[in-house]
Amino acid sequence: MTSQPSPEDFTCPLPLRDYPNIVLGHGGGGQLSDELVQHLFLPQFQNDQLAHLGDSTVLEIGDHRLAFSTDSFVVRPLFFPGGSIGELAVHGTVNDLAMSGAEPLYLSASFILEEGLPIETLQEIAARMATAARQAGVTIVTGDTKVVEKGHGDGCYINTAGIGLVPSGIEIGPERAQPGDAVLISGTLGDHGMAIMSAREGLQFESTIQSDSASLGGLVREMLAVCPEIHVLRDPTRGGLAASLNEIASQSDIGFELEEKRIPVDPIVASACEILGLDPLMVANEGKLLAIVPPANAELLLATMHDNPLGKQAAQIGHVTESHPRMVVAKTAIGGSRVITTEIGEQLPRIC
Amino acid sequence: MTSQPSPEDFTCPLPLRDYPNIVLGHGGGGQLSDELVQHLFLPQFQNDQLAHLGDSTVLEIGDHRLAFSTDSFVVRPLFFPGGSIGELAVHGTVNDLAMSGAEPLYLSASFILEEGLPIETLQEIAARMATAARQAGVTIVTGDTKVVEKGHGDGCYINTAGIGLVPSGIEIGPERAQPGDAVLISGTLGDHGMAIMSAREGLQFESTIQSDSASLGGLVREMLAVCPEIHVLRDPTRGGLAASLNEIASQSDIGFELEEKRIPVDPIVASACEILGLDPLMVANEGKLLAIVPPANAELLLATMHDNPLGKQAAQIGHVTESHPRMVVAKTAIGGSRVITTEIGEQLPRIC
Repeated sequence: MTSQPSPEDFTCPLPLRDYPNIVLGHGGGGQLSDELVQHLFLPQFQNDQLAHLGDSTVLEIGDHRLAFSTDSFVVRPLFFPGGSIGELAVHGTVNDLAMSGAEPLYLSASFILEEGLPIETLQEIAARMATAARQAGVTIVTGDTKVVEKGHGDGCYINTAGIGLVPSGIEIGPERAQPGDAVLISGTLGDHGMAIMSAREGLQFESTIQSDSASLGGLVREMLAVCPEIHVLRDPTRGGLAASLNEIASQSDIGFELEEKRIPVDPIVASACEILGLDPLMVANEGKLLAIVPPANAELLLATMHDNPLGKQAAQIGHVTESHPRMVVAKTAIGGSRVITTEIGEQLPRIC
Repeated sequence: MTSQPSPEDFTCPLPLRDYPNIVLGHGGGGQLSDELVQHLFLPQFQNDQLAHLGDSTVLEIGDHRLAFSTDSFVVRPLFFPGGSIGELAVHGTVNDLAMSGAEPLYLSASFILEEGLPIETLQEIAARMATAARQAGVTIVTGDTKVVEKGHGDGCYINTAGIGLVPSGIEIGPERAQPGDAVLISGTLGDHGMAIMSAREGLQFESTIQSDSASLGGLVREMLAVCPEIHVLRDPTRGGLAASLNEIASQSDIGFELEEKRIPVDPIVASACEILGLDPLMVANEGKLLAIVPPANAELLLATMHDNPLGKQAAQIGHVTESHPRMVVAKTAIGGSRVITTEIGEQLPRIC
């Protein structure tokens, strides 16, 4: 052991890629987003909590462990099948808190409104936020409103930040995946991204694709009640399952082996993705969770998840392996295998 | 005593004014902002903490009292004499926490970037945020980045949310002003708003007006050390001193009597205001605080404030009275008196 800093601990203050300007991909949750964080924000804001890079950060306040998280929402259109920016703003932050095992408690809500937004629209958004907050058991306790000139926004951007309490005994984090762990997913993938895409582009399928936007706090509570030893929880939003698994693989220094045919995808979403040349594993979800758990607990957890409306289609889709660290590999339906990478930018801009 | 709800407790779910659309004034911190909160957000998000309407809300977590606050920043231009959106985003939320007497501890930082923003500009903003955070003694522990298409933002909007710890024994709130209390201000008024205005409009005065953007956490700590009985603290940002005093007057059900000649205003700011037809009492500050304190403590507090670089020009500018509740009256320099009202909208849009 030595106290010398390892060269691996140094971060370069300049983004690796030679983009002189911000591009849409920097907000996509893929490699470009990651580079912005690693090479621009982290060197400036350097501290242990931020370096942890989970969906939320866990702070010690006296004897309590507080989860703290924030997200801005810029989704277009503001209303879409299955939800709106209002529900998304509540569910997004509630879910980030829940992914650290916390009981979500309080939210802030901050609005950047565009001059000319109908008051009625804002009223509808606020009503939907209020309903979503009540259902998720959180209280919106503080807020802010700014207005920008017509043409300088998109009607309404919302930021929420949230505070939750992590029960004692719970230790969840992206660095805790162990070889042999089971990889569970709570339901079908890609619904949210494809719902937004269809609404935005006016695409028609046999039936309307609904966003899965939902608060996962209750499902997490039930899962932790039967298995407090869950290692990692993550809601695969921007960048989809692919981005979440690759992040965990690199933070836990392990690999993933998935069985593609076990990954639940709604048939309509699957065909929409096929038509548009998208991979459902890279499309955003807003009401799904990924759990990495000790293999002995997988069965019980799946049974518990199946009892919750948000986990009816839960499935074990693979396991953690030490044979190819920092790599996500899927066995395909025809018996081959493919490496699942994180996108550089984003397939679908402005989906949350 | 009766448990019947009083008609005064009802809020109307419709904004009082007949604006069908959001106008810039809804973000100005004046009467329109207040109506949006009272008649649109509060009826939806109804709860005790939010109804309190201070700069931050105080939450009980176990034995601890946590201050929680949020602000979005949409200032134009991004850089101005005396600061940038980066410092503002840190100071704004740190100050909101400090105004509840809390020791500011942690910040979140969430960016909405416009496609095409030079990475160099973002780097400069992040560096300034980091410096401001270090100086204020807070840590940026969690964040988020979204990107919107060119033409849908203004380079960079930032949201920060913050958590602080309120020391035991401290009870500060906008409803605690008492008749006889002294009204103290920590320095000159109107500097920030006029700095932004001059930078934006290219106005030239004898010398450049600098924003007063600063973290008030240290000053508050020193003030509370000599006088834990401070009743109200407020940083008069959007809407200026006029909006802050009118809000407190209505929440404490008291009136204010000010002596205009005692209110410190920089001569350059005063003449800039005169040229533009603005009232410095209604112009935003980003590094000033208003303290409403028991009269017996006023002298000691002023002496303490004078010892801090941010309070060198602190002054007692008036007192709390019961003779005209919910009204702010100033004795003018020529011996008359005028009623200081809150603006309907805003004098200067996009100043924070």
